[in-house]
Amino acid sequence: MSAHEELVRELTDEADRGTYEAGSFGHQLGFGERPAVAVVDLQVGYTDPARSPLASDLTDVIAASAEILEAARAVRVPVLFTVEAWDPDALALEGAMLRRKVPSIDLLATGSELVELDPRIQRMPGEPLIAKQRPSAFSGTTLDGMLSASGVDTLIVVGCSTSNCIRSTVSDALSHGFRPIVPVEAVGDRSPASHRASLVDIAMKYADLVRVSDVVKYLDKER
Amino acid sequence: MSAHEELVRELTDEADRGTYEAGSFGHQLGFGERPAVAVVDLQVGYTDPARSPLASDLTDVIAASAEILEAARAVRVPVLFTVEAWDPDALALEGAMLRRKVPSIDLLATGSELVELDPRIQRMPGEPLIAKQRPSAFSGTTLDGMLSASGVDTLIVVGCSTSNCIRSTVSDALSHGFRPIVPVEAVGDRSPASHRASLVDIAMKYADLVRVSDVVKYLDKER
Amino acid sequence: MSAHEELVRELTDEADRGTYEAGSFGHQLGFGERPAVAVVDLQVGYTDPARSPLASDLTDVIAASAEILEAARAVRVPVLFTVEAWDPDALALEGAMLRRKVPSIDLLATGSELVELDPRIQRMPGEPLIAKQRPSAFSGTTLDGMLSASGVDTLIVVGCSTSNCIRSTVSDALSHGFRPIVPVEAVGDRSPASHRASLVDIAMKYADLVRVSDVVKYLDKER
Amino acid sequence: MSAHEELVRELTDEADRGTYEAGSFGHQLGFGERPAVAVVDLQVGYTDPARSPLASDLTDVIAASAEILEAARAVRVPVLFTVEAWDPDALALEGAMLRRKVPSIDLLATGSELVELDPRIQRMPGEPLIAKQRPSAFSGTTLDGMLSASGVDTLIVVGCSTSNCIRSTVSDALSHGFRPIVPVEAVGDRSPASHRASLVDIAMKYADLVRVSDVVKYLDKER
Repeated sequence: MSAHEELVRELTDEADRGTYEAGSFGHQLGFGERPAVAVVDLQVGYTDPARSPLASDLTDVIAASAEILEAARAVRVPVLFTVEAWDPDALALEGAMLRRKVPSIDLLATGSELVELDPRIQRMPGEPLIAKQRPSAFSGTTLDGMLSASGVDTLIVVGCSTSNCIRSTVSDALSHGFRPIVPVEAVGDRSPASHRASLVDIAMKYADLVRVSDVVKYLDKER
Repeated sequence: MSAHEELVRELTDEADRGTYEAGSFGHQLGFGERPAVAVVDLQVGYTDPARSPLASDLTDVIAASAEILEAARAVRVPVLFTVEAWDPDALALEGAMLRRKVPSIDLLATGSELVELDPRIQRMPGEPLIAKQRPSAFSGTTLDGMLSASGVDTLIVVGCSTSNCIRSTVSDALSHGFRPIVPVEAVGDRSPASHRASLVDIAMKYADLVRVSDVVKYLDKER
Repeated sequence: MSAHEELVRELTDEADRGTYEAGSFGHQLGFGERPAVAVVDLQVGYTDPARSPLASDLTDVIAASAEILEAARAVRVPVLFTVEAWDPDALALEGAMLRRKVPSIDLLATGSELVELDPRIQRMPGEPLIAKQRPSAFSGTTLDGMLSASGVDTLIVVGCSTSNCIRSTVSDALSHGFRPIVPVEAVGDRSPASHRASLVDIAMKYADLVRVSDVVKYLDKER
Repeated sequence: MSAHEELVRELTDEADRGTYEAGSFGHQLGFGERPAVAVVDLQVGYTDPARSPLASDLTDVIAASAEILEAARAVRVPVLFTVEAWDPDALALEGAMLRRKVPSIDLLATGSELVELDPRIQRMPGEPLIAKQRPSAFSGTTLDGMLSASGVDTLIVVGCSTSNCIRSTVSDALSHGFRPIVPVEAVGDRSPASHRASLVDIAMKYADLVRVSDVVKYLDKER
């Protein structure tokens, strides 16, 4: 049984499992040949509850992500980062709706400490940082061009939040023709219930669930 | 207390409620001035379990959607439909990944009966039908132009599935600058757990939850 | 001197040539390793002046395109087609602006003979046909996913019009990370002046100009 | 005769004029009710030939743009700016193709003086600055959401270059459902031939051509 299948079995209840099997959902994509790692929104505003009301404790997620980054860098697999960051002037126009829904979005202003990467995650020279404003790392950015131009076929996605930026990023990755992979220990969410439910949705419709150790093994073997 | 607030209280557990309130998530957008109604994927392939392994019983969702359509048409609010439909030739290229994940997607071939609207939902002359291939009705379509060119500011979204096409459509609607509204009785999902979890995520981050009766009242008053 | 360089020399006047050289514009991309051919809008509405006021005589363009298609099919390189086709119901909403600018767009209604491929161009089984509504074949379609999912890195673009759908398609192809290639005899325009000016812009900023014979030679060698 | 019609007559040759009239191209959109002004790429890298090989003398374009900005600010019409600016780390991935085509793109690095706005153009507090990487200001940015969320229906576009970022921005603006307006004295290009040819294409297919004085008159009257 693959890691993906084991994790699916762990996360789904029996009734859903039957429904999804009947519909032939949730098969495994497998790793491709040219991976990249995307670290999504591991910024102070989402990782440090002492400094941000939007944050939750993601200590384990950060440690797991760091482990993947180390393995990726060792074999020169491209790594890129996103942070959610709003130019206040743009937000005044564009945020007409979003600020009404989640007024605390104003805290994620370009230049503020809440849009800096968590200090426990290091960005190395040559690793792009994409400032984004929408849940999916593909929306309103040039991420698709970045991946296609450099021949990437597999996107390993870590970070937060499972129920928002992670799931929409992997859904878009699949739509844009890439293989999305989610190492379960390396993604997190402020709501345990939403985290779990989103992992099931992700497994059934968008991406493979794997363990961090599977990614490390794959990367080690890659080159 | 607004319908949105009542529904949020009903759907969230106490721990999450505290987390979301602390982060100032989930405020109400309210209806705008120029609504449109999007009926998402109420096609035989998703609504008739006798004919499709991808379907679930959405009788109540269809009845609720029909009620909203009646109210919208009475006041000449634009109505549009989506179906998921794949040209087999395109799928052969584009579906390299998706067909591996969900092989049953092959059933939704252009021209097959599974991509026809459920017969309990009528499309009237002048109401566009958008064939889409991705979860969000905005992705790979011209929906954004349709809404902007006709001055729409509010998108009432009904149909299925809550945890996939509904949630990604309302997430994108907010990103593209529209007010998304979800009447809870008019959206459904094959998994009750995913349905409920996605309604919470939607309420917290993307759209207002309302009852069908709220939409009908709003539309009646609109003109 | 490469075909691209020769064609650039032929098409640009001396003053522009100096300007572009000083700015280091217009270098050659070269062919990649996994090509596809996109046949853009060679539909009756654009190719048969007897039946459509939007058309011009593209006999030579069609012959040149057919030659490329033959070479591509011989080595199983993917071929795809686009036509501009409007659902009248969608056009009523979306076309609020466009119909004002170019009212004859109404002629390109889904199902009308003006949206059929020119009979001198054959589409073979397995070759996708994309109905599009915007100039670029990437905009409002899933073309990017089609190319990425099937590992394409080079897009050979033929058809019409050079100054509209061809140039915006190759501009977007480059932005999305693909190598766009334009065989000059296989693209055409109703205005000779716009055709020539757009070829220069294309050569300087978006794509390689080549001759049909270069594409045939490349495809023959490919496999 | 409207300004648009006069300018079209001035710019097109007789043969083309006949062709376009027969096809019913080039009608006037007219101004809408809620305009915004987009100032495209008036950055040192494109405006100061002493400092950048990509630049041309755009003194008159800058003066004309400044006149429109003054009129827009007087009536509180939203103004936004774009600059082309590349994060070198992103460019290393994404630019695999583009850097081959136009190697001088490396000069437009985030933080360099070539991505600063020309000092003769002032950006005022509250006016967003969008860093873009693709020709169209809509591609890889959140501009569409900015316009829709703030209810804009008309986009007045000034800056450079007519044959690249201006024309692709107005083409996309029309596709996304907005009315694009181009004041001819306020757009420029390094190639006079490409400038003129693109103005014709723009007038026929995407936007109204007007004079700066028409925009000023419209804005003055607006409020």
